[in-house]
Amino acid sequence: MKKIINEPEDFVDDMLAGVLSAHGDQLTNVENNNRNIVRAHCKDKVALVSGGGSGHLPLFMGYVGKGLLDGCAVGGVFQSPSVNQIYDITKKVDSGKGVVYIYGNYTGDTMNFEMSSEMADIDGIKTAHVVGNDDVASAPKGEEQKRRGVAGIFFIYKTAGAAAETGASFDEVVRVANKAKANIRTIGVALSPCIIPEVGKPSFTIADDEMEIGMGIHGEPGVKKTKIQKANILVAHMMNTILTDMELEEGCEASVLVNGLGATPKEELYIVWREIAQILAVKKVKVFHVYVGEFATSMEMAGFSISVFKLDDELKMLLRAEARTPFFEQRAY
Amino acid sequence: MKKIINEPEDFVDDMLAGVLSAHGDQLTNVENNNRNIVRAHCKDKVALVSGGGSGHLPLFMGYVGKGLLDGCAVGGVFQSPSVNQIYDITKKVDSGKGVVYIYGNYTGDTMNFEMSSEMADIDGIKTAHVVGNDDVASAPKGEEQKRRGVAGIFFIYKTAGAAAETGASFDEVVRVANKAKANIRTIGVALSPCIIPEVGKPSFTIADDEMEIGMGIHGEPGVKKTKIQKANILVAHMMNTILTDMELEEGCEASVLVNGLGATPKEELYIVWREIAQILAVKKVKVFHVYVGEFATSMEMAGFSISVFKLDDELKMLLRAEARTPFFEQRAY
Repeated sequence: MKKIINEPEDFVDDMLAGVLSAHGDQLTNVENNNRNIVRAHCKDKVALVSGGGSGHLPLFMGYVGKGLLDGCAVGGVFQSPSVNQIYDITKKVDSGKGVVYIYGNYTGDTMNFEMSSEMADIDGIKTAHVVGNDDVASAPKGEEQKRRGVAGIFFIYKTAGAAAETGASFDEVVRVANKAKANIRTIGVALSPCIIPEVGKPSFTIADDEMEIGMGIHGEPGVKKTKIQKANILVAHMMNTILTDMELEEGCEASVLVNGLGATPKEELYIVWREIAQILAVKKVKVFHVYVGEFATSMEMAGFSISVFKLDDELKMLLRAEARTPFFEQRAY
Repeated sequence: MKKIINEPEDFVDDMLAGVLSAHGDQLTNVENNNRNIVRAHCKDKVALVSGGGSGHLPLFMGYVGKGLLDGCAVGGVFQSPSVNQIYDITKKVDSGKGVVYIYGNYTGDTMNFEMSSEMADIDGIKTAHVVGNDDVASAPKGEEQKRRGVAGIFFIYKTAGAAAETGASFDEVVRVANKAKANIRTIGVALSPCIIPEVGKPSFTIADDEMEIGMGIHGEPGVKKTKIQKANILVAHMMNTILTDMELEEGCEASVLVNGLGATPKEELYIVWREIAQILAVKKVKVFHVYVGEFATSMEMAGFSISVFKLDDELKMLLRAEARTPFFEQRAY
């Protein structure tokens, strides 16, 4: 296992100690538990909370900051955070205006966020759930509620976060988050596995000349194992899957996220983007803004995902708003 | 070769087409050559130009933008850009106030930047050279002029770029760049090789249980091959090498850059940072700001580097200034 770590069982806590040491001006913990990350300076506004397993930086905690999230519950590698973590964060960030939970569609996360809601209810804290399910490869059209949440959740954070930051009401933030969610589709491809530190070896393998289209960010099986393909053929196939699933008519506008899963160089992500740009140009879809980089990773997994986010004027305004976390900085554009 | 590319020989040009497609609002080319990258909006100020081989994103072209560089000559993978590229960029970005070349200490780069200087001279364009040589592992103390330039060049760009942006004179920008250069030390460690697309296989190997301390960003041999070590032991060794080479007395201030070489997850970089923070705390060195992420990569190479930048008040002011490129965004702090 080629990792720069101390004891495998300390991976998450050593990492969190490093994050808080580096970014203590922007982030802090709750109840002396570094796995409960919140903004150093809470605001009087509708709060946004996420959470999920470690191993996906900058997802999830990297989006705690201005114009994005207020708090994040950090689990073990690929493990859900606990109910108590979510509840402690909820109490901390609620300013009386309610807390919107935005997380990916995984059983453990859903269960724990729901239980935290019940506990918050008793305290009189209003909560709502927006569950990211952008991965088109994880269940067929018509069964969207079964789909996993992956990198596209960034767009929910970004738009709902911008709405909350400017003082939108609880219902408005929930409406925006749900509107964003309905307009995001993602598909990924993995070229190599990753290793959970406490396991010490890959949980699956991909042959030297193969890739797996549709694989999840925890290595969940994809829809198709194929030989390595050229970028233009692969991206055409992936975009076709997305564009079959969502209506993206001529003249409409979209934002695109080309997300590296960990080991794939930025150079390759830009080659992927070039192919996407050509496909969208042919379809006469206008690209509002493209994000290229690592937004949701699986540690050292090689591969990438493409997320397409269909926009209207309101979503555009929210997407372009300023945001600032230690892991993501965007000036208004 | 597990890469998301089209033809290997098109790797650089496909990538550049993607970059310009994504970031045409901020970057453009010169003389219709995408390998000549300049700011979309030139400014009337002392210009900063860099250049070097591809395969290191965001180095080098990722630092073209506000508060950093004005232009960058992009070579093939791990290859120097040509004299004509550098010269064309020089002519484009010069506003009559001179052009400062800042590049890493590699034979091809040095030769071509020097030849471009001679051509610029004839045109009456003033140039100066600041050659990054921060890699302490590449030559012993006393032979600093033989050392290679690696990730620490970011700090030269950042401080000289901030000076130029605020209207400093040619001599002032050169002075700042040289002061920064004298105060930067870097050491890296590689855990795995990378593959040049046109070669198709790794140019060297590292055994499954080994790492190479001091390896260069093109795979130049390091100072020591060892078994994989725990983060705390490895970082202590690396920091000791840096701190033996530079004077970092009690009470002084420094900035640190923890740079991922490509495949190493951010989680591990934060574990590394935590170890560095503890070492600097014991030495009573005050950390002014820490940068953690990918600043100078070798495509999919696993590993990282540590750069320490000793600061005075002037360098602090320049480091904290706003900067904005498609690859690096920093609000003033």
